[in-house]
Amino acid sequence: MNLPLGFAYATTYAGIRAVEKDDLALIVTGLPATAAGVFTQNRVQAAPVRLGRRHLHSSKGLIGAVVINAGNANCATRTGDAVALTTCKSAAKLLRLPVNQVVPSSTGVIGVELDVRKITDALPRLVAGLNPDGFEQASRAIMTTDLVPKTAFAEVKLRRGTVRIAGMTKGSGMIQPLMATTLGYVMTDANIPAAPLRAMLKRGVERSYNRISVDGDTSTNDTLLLLANGASGVRPDPKEMPMMEAAITDVMESLAQQIARDGEGATKFITITITGAPSNEGAAKMARAIANSPLVKTAIAGSDPNWGRILSAAGNAGVAFDPARTDIHMQGVAVCKSGLAAPFSEQELKKKLDAPDCDIRVAVKGKGKGEARFWTCDLTEGYIRINASYRT
Amino acid sequence: MNLPLGFAYATTYAGIRAVEKDDLALIVTGLPATAAGVFTQNRVQAAPVRLGRRHLHSSKGLIGAVVINAGNANCATRTGDAVALTTCKSAAKLLRLPVNQVVPSSTGVIGVELDVRKITDALPRLVAGLNPDGFEQASRAIMTTDLVPKTAFAEVKLRRGTVRIAGMTKGSGMIQPLMATTLGYVMTDANIPAAPLRAMLKRGVERSYNRISVDGDTSTNDTLLLLANGASGVRPDPKEMPMMEAAITDVMESLAQQIARDGEGATKFITITITGAPSNEGAAKMARAIANSPLVKTAIAGSDPNWGRILSAAGNAGVAFDPARTDIHMQGVAVCKSGLAAPFSEQELKKKLDAPDCDIRVAVKGKGKGEARFWTCDLTEGYIRINASYRT
Repeated sequence: MNLPLGFAYATTYAGIRAVEKDDLALIVTGLPATAAGVFTQNRVQAAPVRLGRRHLHSSKGLIGAVVINAGNANCATRTGDAVALTTCKSAAKLLRLPVNQVVPSSTGVIGVELDVRKITDALPRLVAGLNPDGFEQASRAIMTTDLVPKTAFAEVKLRRGTVRIAGMTKGSGMIQPLMATTLGYVMTDANIPAAPLRAMLKRGVERSYNRISVDGDTSTNDTLLLLANGASGVRPDPKEMPMMEAAITDVMESLAQQIARDGEGATKFITITITGAPSNEGAAKMARAIANSPLVKTAIAGSDPNWGRILSAAGNAGVAFDPARTDIHMQGVAVCKSGLAAPFSEQELKKKLDAPDCDIRVAVKGKGKGEARFWTCDLTEGYIRINASYRT
Repeated sequence: MNLPLGFAYATTYAGIRAVEKDDLALIVTGLPATAAGVFTQNRVQAAPVRLGRRHLHSSKGLIGAVVINAGNANCATRTGDAVALTTCKSAAKLLRLPVNQVVPSSTGVIGVELDVRKITDALPRLVAGLNPDGFEQASRAIMTTDLVPKTAFAEVKLRRGTVRIAGMTKGSGMIQPLMATTLGYVMTDANIPAAPLRAMLKRGVERSYNRISVDGDTSTNDTLLLLANGASGVRPDPKEMPMMEAAITDVMESLAQQIARDGEGATKFITITITGAPSNEGAAKMARAIANSPLVKTAIAGSDPNWGRILSAAGNAGVAFDPARTDIHMQGVAVCKSGLAAPFSEQELKKKLDAPDCDIRVAVKGKGKGEARFWTCDLTEGYIRINASYRT
């Protein structure tokens, strides 16, 4: 897959995380890109989130560089704001950009001071090492408890030429993004003005990052940036914008799914589909309640077709629906018909549930037309092991 | 501790659960008791919950007997309503009570038909075996994944004499009661009219059962009943009602705490106290968000003083507060002052966190006076083991 033109990447180990593994990434676009961002809804927001949001606003959505560190969230620290600002200033000076065209991102532990000199010392070698092919390495440098890097690509053939989209993201715990996820960067070389770009991001997030959860926790650092630098020289015409948006949404959906699939301790990827709810919002609430139920997630871990937990979790969503008109399918097998046990072979279904992909469908047979899809993962002893000892 | 006068209990193994262990309990009061009940808020409600609510209403809050089975929730089954009604009819006939003075309760697996003959066959020997001292045995018969029976007692000395209160409850998973818990029964021999009894229960639940969570799941069968049979011959005078209410609330608070302490797989009991929130409701929301955060619960399991997760979880509650004016204490040790890391010995605090009781205090220093206490438990690999194989 071809990368979007006009972007370059660099990574290094700056000594921020204990293990010697790249922990600092720089994404630069030669032509300043129009940018749209969504950030965490957590009341506690990390310094780089606050500064990134200000920069996007004051630069009128024009961004030249993103500096991302892993290993420290730069959140709830004495020097957080200064660290974020110094990072941007330092990168801006080296790249000859206005300070507000740099967005900082951080991910890692909360409440530990981040030594900004580790970043400023590393930035010159990052700038010197910028490489259009460094995308894959950058996607690795932003990982924390992730087991695999998460990337997605698309090409869109428009009338005036081809444009490319590439996205990278990280995250496997503290995942219940609301308007954003832990960190995600989607680059395209299409030429798209800031206003439609923002609208695309907003709608796309609703169908991707806002439809996954690992543990129901929303991080203090969630950031998703969409950058369009126009380096392809191709501007989608108005009729082509829906196609462009679909491709960008597909990339975001793939990234979001990869996060759920790589959920901390996960052994199974779960797709939840709701139909017949009173509204799409109601369907999403029901899907989220099922996705966040530890009882459903542990049942899937144990390949237990315990549909009663699915029905009960849906009932906790605060959405009006009639359980007696509800069907549930697991792996395509009807387990509940009109709110009652359907006849199925428990042994055969248990075997089907041993697969790495689990499909849960909840259909309410009523007047409602609300639908939603949602992705999550099972809950295993691995999640406990990872999170009982994250800092130590 | 003396039991309330005028109540009798009986238990037996009716063959409802696989393991041969009492699974059917009968509570009877000689004098019909005024009764107040709160039930699950889940949209999916078990047949006994629906019938119990109707009986409480149609009998105008006068109850003579409660029949409780463990091992089957009698929820989402074809015959559920008939099973619940036949249970009440059968008990009513043996006890010579109107049918609507019997309340049924069920707990266990959802979606499996409950053979009512197991109950009707057992009821005659239960009635024959009624015993004023059977309280402790009844508290064991209603257990499912509980490791220990949960009971609490109080005596209140009133001007006209002494009254007694005794409560039993069960539950250790699928626990986030809202208005009720999985099953709970509080008996008193005081003479209290139905209306004030209902008010007492409503306020008391707010401070007890609605302040605990194990896994954030609300069951389909949650029921809490408060029965006052007046067998002591003592009616609290209006001035004594607050004292009476305080004693009943204390019993409910103790029962609720015992549920959190016996949370599935739990090794630690966690008390969360919030002060300085915009309102008591806001404080409760913040406490609940912390109590339901898998990241906080796993950190406590690992004795990790990871206060950043506590702050982040509080930030997810949707309550306005200033993180920069927030202090956090763990085990009495200041770990976060004004939103920043406080100096503390990580090693010493880790040792303190190995204790079976964990205390988390979050103080917002602002104009708010909202306070809440909330109880939960840690999240361990034991929870996963129990719930990945509950049915098998």
